[in-house]
Amino acid sequence: MKPAESNLASPTPGLDRQAGLPERQSPRSIEARLLRGLLRSMGKPPFRVTLWNGEQVGDDPNPLVPHLLIRRRSALYRLLLDPALHFGDAYAAGEVDVEGSLVDFVESCYRGEAHSRRLLLKAYGRTYARRNPPGRSRHNVHHHYDIGNAFYRLWLDEQLLYTCAYFPDPAMTLDQAQVAKMDHVCRKLRLRPGESVVEAGCGWGALALHMARRYGVRVRAFNLSREQIAYARQRAAAEGLAGQVEFVEDDYRNIDGRHDAFVSVGMLEHVGPDHYRELGGVVDHCLAERGRGLIHTIGRNRPMPMNGWIEKRIFPGAYPPSLREMMEIFEPWEFSVLDVENLRLHYARTLEHWLARFESAADEVRRMFDERFVRTWRLYLAGSVAGFTSGQMQLFQVLFARAGNNDIPLTRSDIYRPE
Amino acid sequence: MKPAESNLASPTPGLDRQAGLPERQSPRSIEARLLRGLLRSMGKPPFRVTLWNGEQVGDDPNPLVPHLLIRRRSALYRLLLDPALHFGDAYAAGEVDVEGSLVDFVESCYRGEAHSRRLLLKAYGRTYARRNPPGRSRHNVHHHYDIGNAFYRLWLDEQLLYTCAYFPDPAMTLDQAQVAKMDHVCRKLRLRPGESVVEAGCGWGALALHMARRYGVRVRAFNLSREQIAYARQRAAAEGLAGQVEFVEDDYRNIDGRHDAFVSVGMLEHVGPDHYRELGGVVDHCLAERGRGLIHTIGRNRPMPMNGWIEKRIFPGAYPPSLREMMEIFEPWEFSVLDVENLRLHYARTLEHWLARFESAADEVRRMFDERFVRTWRLYLAGSVAGFTSGQMQLFQVLFARAGNNDIPLTRSDIYRPE
Repeated sequence: MKPAESNLASPTPGLDRQAGLPERQSPRSIEARLLRGLLRSMGKPPFRVTLWNGEQVGDDPNPLVPHLLIRRRSALYRLLLDPALHFGDAYAAGEVDVEGSLVDFVESCYRGEAHSRRLLLKAYGRTYARRNPPGRSRHNVHHHYDIGNAFYRLWLDEQLLYTCAYFPDPAMTLDQAQVAKMDHVCRKLRLRPGESVVEAGCGWGALALHMARRYGVRVRAFNLSREQIAYARQRAAAEGLAGQVEFVEDDYRNIDGRHDAFVSVGMLEHVGPDHYRELGGVVDHCLAERGRGLIHTIGRNRPMPMNGWIEKRIFPGAYPPSLREMMEIFEPWEFSVLDVENLRLHYARTLEHWLARFESAADEVRRMFDERFVRTWRLYLAGSVAGFTSGQMQLFQVLFARAGNNDIPLTRSDIYRPE
Repeated sequence: MKPAESNLASPTPGLDRQAGLPERQSPRSIEARLLRGLLRSMGKPPFRVTLWNGEQVGDDPNPLVPHLLIRRRSALYRLLLDPALHFGDAYAAGEVDVEGSLVDFVESCYRGEAHSRRLLLKAYGRTYARRNPPGRSRHNVHHHYDIGNAFYRLWLDEQLLYTCAYFPDPAMTLDQAQVAKMDHVCRKLRLRPGESVVEAGCGWGALALHMARRYGVRVRAFNLSREQIAYARQRAAAEGLAGQVEFVEDDYRNIDGRHDAFVSVGMLEHVGPDHYRELGGVVDHCLAERGRGLIHTIGRNRPMPMNGWIEKRIFPGAYPPSLREMMEIFEPWEFSVLDVENLRLHYARTLEHWLARFESAADEVRRMFDERFVRTWRLYLAGSVAGFTSGQMQLFQVLFARAGNNDIPLTRSDIYRPE
């Protein structure tokens, strides 16, 4: 089996391609047909193969593609059996060789393997989770977000962002920190003018409008809350951005189109872990090959049930996941996580602002509702401050892209470059 | 059950603490004793409790600690049954109240809950995994790293770093990029002069010496490879750093002491997922309360077996984990992941440098070993370039701290600030 050392070290291939063999003869041997089947399942990777008997498989017209030489029939059968295991030994022994770039050849094999896996996943991989089906999601969202815009206006910032702000300078006002958060998200996504962005769970529309206004992108923003969508549409119209930002009152499961970026800030808490794989499938469906995605969510250091009282009184159906649980969004679809940042202390500070503003408006809230409502929300806000300062709660921003996308920045320094 | 609204809104507590009750009377009722037991299991959180009958539980001498008033016996029983669920309703209804900071009170409760969980984990939580027990690890490490320093010197950088470099500027040389990697790690760890660092898997000692030299820390560095440890000790002595850096030829499982930082660059690939929880336990044991940790490892977008050939010929026992799998290090011990960065393209570039240098030295390698060895290593290096450029392989740096540690920077901008 082992060729002579002199043969191994020889730079000349074991057969002469210039010796008049037709370049694209139709493969006839059983081995050539097996190999052709393997290459087809790999999405026809860009390389040519020549067998020991001179037969050629793979017809990439580019003469620069790597050229695999299989010098022994037994080596081919081992390759068909388990290419990942046997290629290395066959190569080391000189039973197979690669003309052209060895790196390019192996890279084509890897991309081909990934192609096969994706075909399988698309055929068999969808799960049908049930915990928060669309009807229940609509009910849950209505419970919390449709209390009335007037109530939230009493203690949120001017643009009504109901998610963790970002305080690169601790002296920032809440309004400044919410703008800084939106810019932090947009910088991580490396938005470029003219790109198309889809947003899942857009609240009162602040981020969608900010992306359109400051970064020149087109946005399609989804939300189940009727009150929030109505408000967001009014704002878009008032700002003359209605042609650039479309607010859609619909479930994230119905997101369509193909977009350069996917962003979701503060929705995942309402999705439920049973649906993470399905959410990943939605992203897989709507994200362009070179697209980027960002999910911003409350999280945990380890899986833990939601506080029972908050689930009952404030956020029915809500669940903040651990990072391990979040990976169910990305791993089945082979997304590549590029960057995770934990902004826990920023949420503590955001909530301190909200709590102080809520207390200033407590009399008004009492007139709108009653004392029990005031005490419920006071405890919810104060308890949330404590949750983040004590490290019980986390805030994760997860940036991701498709596995094979090399159009990603080498470092994160651009996020921190002054404007 | 529901008190009158007027009572709810009243700022005066339901009983008068100034009315001559002894401040620290010994609790006698069954309810007070139950409550005292609950507080003990929570590590005696800093607040006082006064019951409906005037009894007091909790004797924190600080008069500023929050004061919980439980106004109804039935509320206490519900709290004992499921505090997380029932506290909220009881508070909203005014059956319990908090004097002093509501945020501080809830934060103490959260920290107390975490205390209880940690007690349970320490008692029952250790697993005894077997896949890479210490003897097998020693064998595996010897297989790869003790091939001979002379071989690695042919194609690694000057300081012999055999892990992914960092190229913030793509024009950097390999030597510069390895120094940049070490600085990137040290900056993420926010090392301060005089601190103590433990390193798990220190290779030829470059990072340990760099941390001591440039950041003024003391280092205890562990490694199973006899050849590497011998080399590292020589370097430490030659540089006059032997008093500041101790190289220990031992398994990471035997790490001892209490340190301000834990760092491991390129060891996790050899640990095996069955041992991640155990590794987390080692970190839990050796990391100070305000300590930081960083693990740098080759990874995957999804769990996948190691390439069979590489496992067999190059790295026996090796396994690059997905992020989900890595979380088994952190989640059982409630570590908080602060920052994850994927440096995949940097490893592709590092490997391109290694491959080019290896090819330049191929004749010498052939003289040291044989042609089969040259072809084996050529394929391993070229295949690894392809693994990273195609997105099959990832390189994760995960920064973490203890859950309750608020001595963490607000942003990552300091990592990117010019020196």
